[in-house]
Amino acid sequence: MSQPPKILVFAGSLRKDSSNKKLASIAANAARKAGAEVTYIDLKDYPLPIYDGDIEESEGLPPNALRLKELMIQSDGFILASPEYNGSISGVLKNMIDWTSRKAHPEEIYLSCFIDKMALLLSASPSPLGGLRGLVHLRSILENIYTFVLPKQKTISDSWNAFDDKGNFIRSKDQKDVEDLAETLVKTIQKILAKDP
Amino acid sequence: MSQPPKILVFAGSLRKDSSNKKLASIAANAARKAGAEVTYIDLKDYPLPIYDGDIEESEGLPPNALRLKELMIQSDGFILASPEYNGSISGVLKNMIDWTSRKAHPEEIYLSCFIDKMALLLSASPSPLGGLRGLVHLRSILENIYTFVLPKQKTISDSWNAFDDKGNFIRSKDQKDVEDLAETLVKTIQKILAKDP
Amino acid sequence: MSQPPKILVFAGSLRKDSSNKKLASIAANAARKAGAEVTYIDLKDYPLPIYDGDIEESEGLPPNALRLKELMIQSDGFILASPEYNGSISGVLKNMIDWTSRKAHPEEIYLSCFIDKMALLLSASPSPLGGLRGLVHLRSILENIYTFVLPKQKTISDSWNAFDDKGNFIRSKDQKDVEDLAETLVKTIQKILAKDP
Amino acid sequence: MSQPPKILVFAGSLRKDSSNKKLASIAANAARKAGAEVTYIDLKDYPLPIYDGDIEESEGLPPNALRLKELMIQSDGFILASPEYNGSISGVLKNMIDWTSRKAHPEEIYLSCFIDKMALLLSASPSPLGGLRGLVHLRSILENIYTFVLPKQKTISDSWNAFDDKGNFIRSKDQKDVEDLAETLVKTIQKILAKDP
Repeated sequence: MSQPPKILVFAGSLRKDSSNKKLASIAANAARKAGAEVTYIDLKDYPLPIYDGDIEESEGLPPNALRLKELMIQSDGFILASPEYNGSISGVLKNMIDWTSRKAHPEEIYLSCFIDKMALLLSASPSPLGGLRGLVHLRSILENIYTFVLPKQKTISDSWNAFDDKGNFIRSKDQKDVEDLAETLVKTIQKILAKDP
Repeated sequence: MSQPPKILVFAGSLRKDSSNKKLASIAANAARKAGAEVTYIDLKDYPLPIYDGDIEESEGLPPNALRLKELMIQSDGFILASPEYNGSISGVLKNMIDWTSRKAHPEEIYLSCFIDKMALLLSASPSPLGGLRGLVHLRSILENIYTFVLPKQKTISDSWNAFDDKGNFIRSKDQKDVEDLAETLVKTIQKILAKDP
Repeated sequence: MSQPPKILVFAGSLRKDSSNKKLASIAANAARKAGAEVTYIDLKDYPLPIYDGDIEESEGLPPNALRLKELMIQSDGFILASPEYNGSISGVLKNMIDWTSRKAHPEEIYLSCFIDKMALLLSASPSPLGGLRGLVHLRSILENIYTFVLPKQKTISDSWNAFDDKGNFIRSKDQKDVEDLAETLVKTIQKILAKDP
Repeated sequence: MSQPPKILVFAGSLRKDSSNKKLASIAANAARKAGAEVTYIDLKDYPLPIYDGDIEESEGLPPNALRLKELMIQSDGFILASPEYNGSISGVLKNMIDWTSRKAHPEEIYLSCFIDKMALLLSASPSPLGGLRGLVHLRSILENIYTFVLPKQKTISDSWNAFDDKGNFIRSKDQKDVEDLAETLVKTIQKILAKDP
């Protein structure tokens, strides 16, 4: 009997009332329902300075970068709900990737918290495109650092009218799509984790 | 005991002496060595008109499009060796994707020859970038039509000096990298094909 | 008094009833109204084989490739109405770019029919994204070959309901947007063409 | 007689000894030589918090975001020397764009510090690609917010061996390429700024 896959879920925005946090939260529940062991975090609880090679050289990685790296290493996969800012991902998400991509110590395998992890990408945006352009960049960034990204993704357009005041989806199709994708992620990780055939 | 994965291998160029055909051929052998059942084809043997919706409406899909679709549907994965023309993929590869993405008959599941297939991308180019920009587009095209693309890929730069006159790699690192990637593809497909856990 | 800018306009599709041909045609009229000398062509009148380095070596460029190159060289700018096929540009447009990017004779300056031309990108698509993903690729292809691309572009979503049966826009905003962009293109070319300050 | 174009130059990295700062500095001198009025800044002198919609709502834009916006609005064009972090632009550059893209006050025209500015993109990187993948993202980000980006750009590969200890280029071709591009930028802005023909 196999272990449940471990999935780390977070949004790429800091704002308390962020649609992407609502989306991440729904996806976290969907992944749990599909059998995963889910850790949901809020990047606001892991503040980081903006990456600066001089800080890294003099002080090493900030404690929150180490914590995030550890959470990622312990995970088999990620669900990211990424806002689109100016046609790309948010600065906070890029900065988090930049710090966690650095080695905690010289012997660490480079990019060990990204390699062979399996990621599902989601996005909510007030625009009709639903954050699609941000996901194009996020997908290419993650694949460049050897994360496996599910081809299917979900963008929530018109996000101001997509959630009710409890943070649930108004459109049942959105709920079903996110549940289906979360289940696909969980099943795919289970297969990949299975011992070599 | 599981079936060997079926892998379709081809280059995105027509020229007889194409570096990408050499690369595809080496990768085909590597996939065989890793345990796959490999079908290597040359797109020159499957000539297609340029996609035109009027042709499709009046005559349906051309016989070679149907043959290619059938080969793809029978496969679990693809290895593509894609040249870079003008910062993107070749017209012949794009046109082949455009035709095979169309339904052979109304009941066919849309994109059935792409969905959930697992692809490895390779590229050879005379430029120092090795065709990287073409693979950026190819990756995004395939993922848009729900093919799983391995995050790791291999670009062969300075391709005019990369192969000997028998079509083998001159640099042993190139050979090892392609063999490792082919093995990763084969193993990943084997896991994905394994029955649901 | 300066010469009117010369603008070549065409769609990236072959189908007779293509929305992108309607869009190109509207844009051609808008560019004329803004003071340009406009040449509108239909790629169906310039059939080309799929690019093959062996054909190029044995026969040189096909006559239609030479005609297209000449039209492009005579132009100061382009308006392209590009459909989206599988998240990228059409095979016919990519193939046309691949042929015209090749030298007609050894002394020709490489990419002379693209360098420093100024392009406006348009797209019509039945999808809610209006062909946006195709324009992302087209923009990067053209800039890689040194064409200047206007940052602003226009995508027509829900294209089946965007044109009346005479091929005019139903939504007046679409008409205004295309006219404004065509005027921006014409004015920008006029400035660029002005003698060095 | 026309005014000299005003060009703002900066690197997308914070590290004191950054190759991209050296590159930005060389480009600043080249733009001055070509007749521009150049302002060179170091983003380390304009520290910003990571963008957070809650901060913006409660406190408005940070003073350094306002200063940067003002510098950008006063400029006709930008030269950006952008490092590549994880296949995209740096968090510091993305964060700076995210803050400056926000309105300083409700009446401000949205994106006024980006619209119709003309940008030249440069990149230095230790990798053989020279930061190319970062520039792909930067180009698409800037064009999405209506900045004009010169099609030609320059990537400095193997950056650790590209500069001498005074911060000058070792390879004279690099120097010439940057000078030519800076001159192209200056001349293009002069034409665009010229009064309507």
